[in-house]
Amino acid sequence: MAIENLDEMLQQAFDESSKIYQERGFQRRIGFGKKPALVSIDLANAWTRPGNPFTCDMEKMDNEIIPGMQRLLEAARANGHVVVHVTTAYQNTDRNDPHTDMGQWHNKIPVEAVSLEDEELWAIDSRIAPIKGEWVMMKKRASAFSGTPLAGYLQTCGVDTIIFTGVTATACVRTSICDGLQEGFRTIAARECIGDRVPGAVAWNLYDIDAKFADVEPVDTCVNYLNNVEGWNNEAG
Amino acid sequence: MAIENLDEMLQQAFDESSKIYQERGFQRRIGFGKKPALVSIDLANAWTRPGNPFTCDMEKMDNEIIPGMQRLLEAARANGHVVVHVTTAYQNTDRNDPHTDMGQWHNKIPVEAVSLEDEELWAIDSRIAPIKGEWVMMKKRASAFSGTPLAGYLQTCGVDTIIFTGVTATACVRTSICDGLQEGFRTIAARECIGDRVPGAVAWNLYDIDAKFADVEPVDTCVNYLNNVEGWNNEAG
Amino acid sequence: MAIENLDEMLQQAFDESSKIYQERGFQRRIGFGKKPALVSIDLANAWTRPGNPFTCDMEKMDNEIIPGMQRLLEAARANGHVVVHVTTAYQNTDRNDPHTDMGQWHNKIPVEAVSLEDEELWAIDSRIAPIKGEWVMMKKRASAFSGTPLAGYLQTCGVDTIIFTGVTATACVRTSICDGLQEGFRTIAARECIGDRVPGAVAWNLYDIDAKFADVEPVDTCVNYLNNVEGWNNEAG
Amino acid sequence: MAIENLDEMLQQAFDESSKIYQERGFQRRIGFGKKPALVSIDLANAWTRPGNPFTCDMEKMDNEIIPGMQRLLEAARANGHVVVHVTTAYQNTDRNDPHTDMGQWHNKIPVEAVSLEDEELWAIDSRIAPIKGEWVMMKKRASAFSGTPLAGYLQTCGVDTIIFTGVTATACVRTSICDGLQEGFRTIAARECIGDRVPGAVAWNLYDIDAKFADVEPVDTCVNYLNNVEGWNNEAG
Repeated sequence: MAIENLDEMLQQAFDESSKIYQERGFQRRIGFGKKPALVSIDLANAWTRPGNPFTCDMEKMDNEIIPGMQRLLEAARANGHVVVHVTTAYQNTDRNDPHTDMGQWHNKIPVEAVSLEDEELWAIDSRIAPIKGEWVMMKKRASAFSGTPLAGYLQTCGVDTIIFTGVTATACVRTSICDGLQEGFRTIAARECIGDRVPGAVAWNLYDIDAKFADVEPVDTCVNYLNNVEGWNNEAG
Repeated sequence: MAIENLDEMLQQAFDESSKIYQERGFQRRIGFGKKPALVSIDLANAWTRPGNPFTCDMEKMDNEIIPGMQRLLEAARANGHVVVHVTTAYQNTDRNDPHTDMGQWHNKIPVEAVSLEDEELWAIDSRIAPIKGEWVMMKKRASAFSGTPLAGYLQTCGVDTIIFTGVTATACVRTSICDGLQEGFRTIAARECIGDRVPGAVAWNLYDIDAKFADVEPVDTCVNYLNNVEGWNNEAG
Repeated sequence: MAIENLDEMLQQAFDESSKIYQERGFQRRIGFGKKPALVSIDLANAWTRPGNPFTCDMEKMDNEIIPGMQRLLEAARANGHVVVHVTTAYQNTDRNDPHTDMGQWHNKIPVEAVSLEDEELWAIDSRIAPIKGEWVMMKKRASAFSGTPLAGYLQTCGVDTIIFTGVTATACVRTSICDGLQEGFRTIAARECIGDRVPGAVAWNLYDIDAKFADVEPVDTCVNYLNNVEGWNNEAG
Repeated sequence: MAIENLDEMLQQAFDESSKIYQERGFQRRIGFGKKPALVSIDLANAWTRPGNPFTCDMEKMDNEIIPGMQRLLEAARANGHVVVHVTTAYQNTDRNDPHTDMGQWHNKIPVEAVSLEDEELWAIDSRIAPIKGEWVMMKKRASAFSGTPLAGYLQTCGVDTIIFTGVTATACVRTSICDGLQEGFRTIAARECIGDRVPGAVAWNLYDIDAKFADVEPVDTCVNYLNNVEGWNNEAG
């Protein structure tokens, strides 16, 4: 039994679980709402380019995530929807300093690799660069909502639906999606635009997310929604 | 290839991932700190007993989670440590009422199954019943920190370390652990005391958690820590 | 110079301050939005009835706050607007127990006076009793948003404007208003429906609030808005 | 009756109120704890220097707040205590852009005056400049805790007591203090180091704060505490 069968085996587990979920009333559709925001998580060079501990699966990044984001950005911008680019960096990356702004996280993962001083690392990937007026929001924790004004910002914008993209499925994307739901938003995960750096992690995290926290939808569906949201129907979500 | 091989296959995936994580500096040990709290998530009848959509794997519940919790509670109480029992319920379980306190979550999972009026459902399992002075904290979202005063409560108690138990690994336990770390605490997941209701979910969620959000430790280690925390050493964690 | 001149003297100070504020661009109008919620703070018996350390100015309570709330509730209910009744109580009111859910607050004020066990104390005043479907939200801190799911709840309801009433101006009402603004809502303080228990406190807190955190508006204006919100214009706020 | 009698008149009102507060059990002493942080609010050029809408009372700034902060910083640094410098700025200060990161606040006060692009404005005053390792924390709302990772940061640092300084008493300092208490910390307001820009505001806000949210203590007492905290006794607070 080789690791190349992983996806197949996972699919069997998902099918088994889905029977239980369906009987119990899980895996419901939250649907698209009336006013969306596109929120990308950590699509910055430390994650999207080679050479960093945070570097993700480059094949998926270059062939699916970045091209998908380009399409989503185009649709969001053409229709004047809210776009937020989230990234992560630290002022004090000295692990021996008990007063570092890394908090506890450097005791689990190598966050010291992203220094605020090295803007190139935390800058959003130039292929999906922010345009004037789009907020580049700096965070220090996994979730885009933890220790940030994101929820209140989206409330003021009148947003009711968030389309999430980015990395990683295991950490920052999943926690952001869970918080987005908790903060009262309709949560959509753009399937091809969510990546990670280890085998299986995208599959099982998207499975869990779709069962309980957000609708996992193809980029095509999200683009179509962004282009047609005036007439979009929740029931159609 | 049958579902009974799932654990074996997952282990292969985890081994593969761990190589990457180790090279990159993930899977660090956060360690036990100086002042712990025991926080159990949703070990209430709707989850621990048969007959509810939220009912979890009963074999694991009866043979591992409840007995493990009994040992953890005994050690925590014998040493005067903080104990918080978290549960979940709603005042208005009418899915057609747009003003229900269920928020968005009933659009993904059957939270309407836990009415505040039916105290039997949200009461903590009598086998691990709260004693006088222990806080039974009601939440409405997945995370024990989302929309609750838990973080500030633990701050006032002087706690620096949280031992998490409960259900489910996929949802309320994982989001609570992620938030615990974000709120600045050392986070420990008591391995045998974390359950779910579908195959594979405990395995892959504990794997992700240990890689990035908390140390997954045997109940034995946690009990030993609770009994010896005065002299406990972070480096030993 | 006697205390009966307090209001007059405060008005002089306010006039002086308002010159500075106006020159600098403070005291702007936030305006009423498109979808309101009525949120009352601590209009429960411990605050609205005699005999408790929290008892407020009874003359204002009986003659202005309760009658004003009755008019606001009538307008909100007639038009199907969101209504939330916020109250405060504690499970463990033993000040000697370091694990009490009162947190740090009992070290400043007598919160031990409101026990969860004595429902009569924390029940909403029967003259403005909740009706079926209206959420009675329990909090433990001053702000209605601190350690509660209120912001996310209002987000899911599609609310963009909060009309605040209740007690006290100094503490729970002011902090709730500040948080409401921070969470992204248009914030309105219903002038006659906000009380306190000491001289001057209502005046100077409403002055500060109107300068920086919310529009202080007469109950008449709020009732009119609630009855006409479909056609209401922000610019008219 | 002239405005120059304001302080005297306010003192009469405070004396009247204090009788009620004392009878009822308010105005308790929270006391200094075992591990402090010094947190300054908006002591940046837009507030501490002339010429900005946010400019505060310059006489108090130059003669009391800055010299007091210098003494507090010296004591904090000499003893290795946590220091956080909080400031405020916005990426998008266009009030006509509905997606500005100013949220709702520009609809009450002129926050568009502090652009992230003009670092001189939001830089901490050079007389109390941060040194290496001290966190300069950017916020966008009034409270230093709203939409920031401050609470979790202080939790990881092991802090239990916050000494607050800065401006303004009415807005950012008061909301930060209220949140500090809600987040579970012992809260101390350093009396001479808290300012504002309009008459009376410092007096009535410090009065309210001391009654319900923090101990207002002279800078001398705070400096003494910072220098002696190992042996400091809560009861002495």
